[in-house]
Amino acid sequence: MYSFVNDYSEGAHPRILKLLMENSYEQNTGYGDDVYSKRAKEYIKKHLNRENVDIHFIPGGTQTNLIVISAFLRPHECVIAADTGHINVHETGAIEATGHKVVAVPATGGKLTPADIQKALDYHKDEHMVKPKMVYISNSTELGTIYKKAELEAIHDICKMNNLLLFLDGARLASALTCERNDLAIQDMARLVDVFYIGGTKNGALLGEALVICKDELKEDFRYLIKQRGAMLAKGFVIGMQFEALFQDDLYFELGSHANKMAEKLAKALIECGYTFFAPTCTNQLFPIIPDEILNKLTDHFQFIVMEKADNNSSIVRLVTSWATTEDSVAAFCEFLKSIS
Amino acid sequence: MYSFVNDYSEGAHPRILKLLMENSYEQNTGYGDDVYSKRAKEYIKKHLNRENVDIHFIPGGTQTNLIVISAFLRPHECVIAADTGHINVHETGAIEATGHKVVAVPATGGKLTPADIQKALDYHKDEHMVKPKMVYISNSTELGTIYKKAELEAIHDICKMNNLLLFLDGARLASALTCERNDLAIQDMARLVDVFYIGGTKNGALLGEALVICKDELKEDFRYLIKQRGAMLAKGFVIGMQFEALFQDDLYFELGSHANKMAEKLAKALIECGYTFFAPTCTNQLFPIIPDEILNKLTDHFQFIVMEKADNNSSIVRLVTSWATTEDSVAAFCEFLKSIS
Amino acid sequence: MYSFVNDYSEGAHPRILKLLMENSYEQNTGYGDDVYSKRAKEYIKKHLNRENVDIHFIPGGTQTNLIVISAFLRPHECVIAADTGHINVHETGAIEATGHKVVAVPATGGKLTPADIQKALDYHKDEHMVKPKMVYISNSTELGTIYKKAELEAIHDICKMNNLLLFLDGARLASALTCERNDLAIQDMARLVDVFYIGGTKNGALLGEALVICKDELKEDFRYLIKQRGAMLAKGFVIGMQFEALFQDDLYFELGSHANKMAEKLAKALIECGYTFFAPTCTNQLFPIIPDEILNKLTDHFQFIVMEKADNNSSIVRLVTSWATTEDSVAAFCEFLKSIS
Amino acid sequence: MYSFVNDYSEGAHPRILKLLMENSYEQNTGYGDDVYSKRAKEYIKKHLNRENVDIHFIPGGTQTNLIVISAFLRPHECVIAADTGHINVHETGAIEATGHKVVAVPATGGKLTPADIQKALDYHKDEHMVKPKMVYISNSTELGTIYKKAELEAIHDICKMNNLLLFLDGARLASALTCERNDLAIQDMARLVDVFYIGGTKNGALLGEALVICKDELKEDFRYLIKQRGAMLAKGFVIGMQFEALFQDDLYFELGSHANKMAEKLAKALIECGYTFFAPTCTNQLFPIIPDEILNKLTDHFQFIVMEKADNNSSIVRLVTSWATTEDSVAAFCEFLKSIS
Repeated sequence: MYSFVNDYSEGAHPRILKLLMENSYEQNTGYGDDVYSKRAKEYIKKHLNRENVDIHFIPGGTQTNLIVISAFLRPHECVIAADTGHINVHETGAIEATGHKVVAVPATGGKLTPADIQKALDYHKDEHMVKPKMVYISNSTELGTIYKKAELEAIHDICKMNNLLLFLDGARLASALTCERNDLAIQDMARLVDVFYIGGTKNGALLGEALVICKDELKEDFRYLIKQRGAMLAKGFVIGMQFEALFQDDLYFELGSHANKMAEKLAKALIECGYTFFAPTCTNQLFPIIPDEILNKLTDHFQFIVMEKADNNSSIVRLVTSWATTEDSVAAFCEFLKSIS
Repeated sequence: MYSFVNDYSEGAHPRILKLLMENSYEQNTGYGDDVYSKRAKEYIKKHLNRENVDIHFIPGGTQTNLIVISAFLRPHECVIAADTGHINVHETGAIEATGHKVVAVPATGGKLTPADIQKALDYHKDEHMVKPKMVYISNSTELGTIYKKAELEAIHDICKMNNLLLFLDGARLASALTCERNDLAIQDMARLVDVFYIGGTKNGALLGEALVICKDELKEDFRYLIKQRGAMLAKGFVIGMQFEALFQDDLYFELGSHANKMAEKLAKALIECGYTFFAPTCTNQLFPIIPDEILNKLTDHFQFIVMEKADNNSSIVRLVTSWATTEDSVAAFCEFLKSIS
Repeated sequence: MYSFVNDYSEGAHPRILKLLMENSYEQNTGYGDDVYSKRAKEYIKKHLNRENVDIHFIPGGTQTNLIVISAFLRPHECVIAADTGHINVHETGAIEATGHKVVAVPATGGKLTPADIQKALDYHKDEHMVKPKMVYISNSTELGTIYKKAELEAIHDICKMNNLLLFLDGARLASALTCERNDLAIQDMARLVDVFYIGGTKNGALLGEALVICKDELKEDFRYLIKQRGAMLAKGFVIGMQFEALFQDDLYFELGSHANKMAEKLAKALIECGYTFFAPTCTNQLFPIIPDEILNKLTDHFQFIVMEKADNNSSIVRLVTSWATTEDSVAAFCEFLKSIS
Repeated sequence: MYSFVNDYSEGAHPRILKLLMENSYEQNTGYGDDVYSKRAKEYIKKHLNRENVDIHFIPGGTQTNLIVISAFLRPHECVIAADTGHINVHETGAIEATGHKVVAVPATGGKLTPADIQKALDYHKDEHMVKPKMVYISNSTELGTIYKKAELEAIHDICKMNNLLLFLDGARLASALTCERNDLAIQDMARLVDVFYIGGTKNGALLGEALVICKDELKEDFRYLIKQRGAMLAKGFVIGMQFEALFQDDLYFELGSHANKMAEKLAKALIECGYTFFAPTCTNQLFPIIPDEILNKLTDHFQFIVMEKADNNSSIVRLVTSWATTEDSVAAFCEFLKSIS
């Protein structure tokens, strides 16, 4: 039964596996000081068109989030996030476990606005409350939506004005940057945020995220913090090789683009069948609202997540495509959907 | 230049890579609930000859240590370790970062004794001091030494008597269990300790440790703790596949045995050249004391770590072999050593 | 200018100071093992009509909250609280600093209901989210409201059914238990909650809260946790003496009752002037909604906190009375208010 | 039975209690923003002969230590302390509970030297280990010894050179600064350390320590950190009044001097009886080595702590005098000692 459950169901892109395979007996320096990691960082910097960033490879997203947030905040400082933000709901209190409050702001479509941030700033006014020091956003968001350039610039501005660090979770950055409505280049990231990461796990790697620290004051001693949280792989070259494969040319973006194209086809079929969407996405996550009787038939043939009831007779569904989603399976889904709608 | 720096320089055993390669496009359930992880756990249980253990796969050793220790201790409880223990010196305060003191005991040859533990118990006598609740040992130790069955049983006994949890770090368990002097079976682990892990990273895997929880009271909610510390890989099947390859038959032990054999050859050559050892090891880590003039010549041809000065004219060296160490390189080292000694 | 800002503006009741004064040169055992603390505990147990509770004296409320919550939760467990709960907003992230998420539930009038708790339980369904393990309520609440016996019993029941610990913050317990609408006896506390504290700071003591641990399983090693958080005063007898004075007879309740009576008079005057209240309280905290033009005149003669705008022309005000509030000042306030309304 | 167990057995100096008593019904601003606290800070600054320091009042010593250390260190940074340091042994892991390792250095007579610090610096050389960032010393030390000016200057120098913060625990600063061998003025503190505290609890106050932050970069947001750890008393004026009484004139130093004089008399008698000392102290803590048969008789008439066996027939004893120790009791001890020696 084909799965649209998530974008980390499959292994890794063949070019990644080839690199791992062909160089398996080579001896490398440990802990990320190997030639693959170095080359991968150079490739990424070339894509960013910037030299003065620090790049670190970290096995997973939750780990990256908790290391970044605890590295840069003093004990009394908090991070502002959308209430749907990954750090707020789906990391088992990982941020709090490092000692910091996540100030969750009710957000529409998974996105924070300057007004949301200002409201949080206004509310926290003295030493009896935590002090906002960082803003966390994700792009694409947990609801599949994206930030437009003007939106990200506005967030950048309010952060600068209020001495807030801006951290962008790019677990699904590939999909965000290659979707149709997007007008942000990856170079804009390094210009507009203080620290962000380029997700590998959800875009064709076995594991691994590339953290990019843009702000100079944040760079010091960062490897200590990676090590302390258990995120410094002995065989760091395993992640290095994967990002070398992804960024040596444009593979990273091609994979994101493929996932988006597959999602577009699904979306088109859903629209043709008359369904609406919970969140207006253009990336590899779709949130259609589907009548329960249709749903019952779909679940016999395809795997996906039913989020919650939309009303008495229909539910919000999450469909996710990936770098590996096949044209055939998408076609099969669309055809079947039409046949039962 | 051939490296004897560590046992995590090379990639992974071909059978591991083959499994990753052949099943890369298959769709798996995320977060370790996949069929590979399930099969791998069954294979490990078979080797342990026990069903009633919980097994979890975790990316790395530091992470495993910090999750285990923080999962099972209340805030005021501490863990007793040898002063050379990995958690005490080489994890950037990872344990303290979870809130717990490591009570370091001066230990000979990297090994704790019941007397060491008793001394720590006697010292901590009231609520103004931390309360010992866990004992951490590693096998093989950071100095390449191993625990004999009688020694482990004695530690087990004092732990039971004092209501202390016994945690064994098996980052190099393969080498420990397959070395010549060893009289412990892997089944003894599950009998004598409360929780231990079977290291993959240092024995032929790309990454991954298999944590085995033996004591029933420790099993509850453990996946929450893995997730919270960022150690639950989205593609958990990547570790599952590796442990399936390692434990489907006896590959895990064959790889450990190979590393040991390579080390024995190096040891034999060192002894023939008249050198003594800082720690009496039979595993894949050797700590010979070598005159500095010899050392200077060796470092032109081979890579390894010089630990510290032994006296004015000689130094303690660490040589490590791995599952991938070649007969040729070992022969070359031995030959060259003899030629200059 | 007389202050209705809070209930911790004045020093301590004369009988407390007398005890401190008369016994100042006596030599006591340190860290709370003194005779005053022992006697005070006996007096409290007598009031509770229970012997099998553990009582500890802790300097302040935030400290008590953070010690209790971190003592009883495992790292992945969270505490459910009203969004207005003290731990959620006014403790600078003290709970999160111990590693735990506060799951804040939108609550009416500062009070949690079984339905609120059930909703939080339903939401947290797997290991990707924190696990609810404790419910925190305050009585009286931060909005001056109280729990009726039936309400507390209902919360007790849902907690028991779901294996949740119930913790009651009694910083203002004296006022809650002596107010007109109250139908809870202090004995009900020990029956219905697992752990609670009897606030001294806000009811006539210089400092100090009496924590009562009712549930046997929670008693072990608690002094370690007090010490670790820096809450074990060397001169513990200073708090012991104060609770001896408060509980030797009914002084504790008399002081709470006095504060309530003073508040009633203020409330009566406010009602007579036609003002309504933001929260329907019967305790020593009042939240009248007052026109801004009246407010401007009041603030020239009395101190109190203006919480926030109620609408364009009026504001929510907080008036607090204490054990030391004088009849004269209350009369003066009422008279002045009537003269300007 | 008279007690020489510690210096926190008695209540508070009469002038402190008088102030508390006489102003008990006055209304004060909460959380340390009252006039007593302000005046007390001015008096202390006058004694320090410096305006540009920040002063905060904190209830106890362990709390002060944990707030200071966690406020100023990033997660991977550690504090270096003598192995006998209070933070290392007698605070139930309070520092580790905030996430930081205490690197304990074997120290003679409770005192750190530049060589000790250098050794710790040399040992911690890369990101696999914690990074030293602070040095903790106490004056007088836990063994009653003191730092001479030249010693403190040398520690200051090595700290500056290595970018280490210097924190001095002055729980017993009064005794240190008024003892015979001392050549440090309180003004030297503010010049030579980055942050220190002036202990009240062990020198005549009911509770309270005055933290002095000298280094500008450390001053920001400190009240947030006090609040977060539960150390911001609602009735902060209670500590303010006490430090006003202690520093309005020279009471603080007179009390320390009295304790020292009482200890000198005890020391003189011990020397006359031929006993030697475990640590060469001139402050209010004495560590004589006393034959066990003498000890047995002493314990029938006086209370004190027996630390540990010195050899088969004698033990190390701790005798502590205080601001309240009476001439009579000292005379009685000396007389009785001579009668049995």
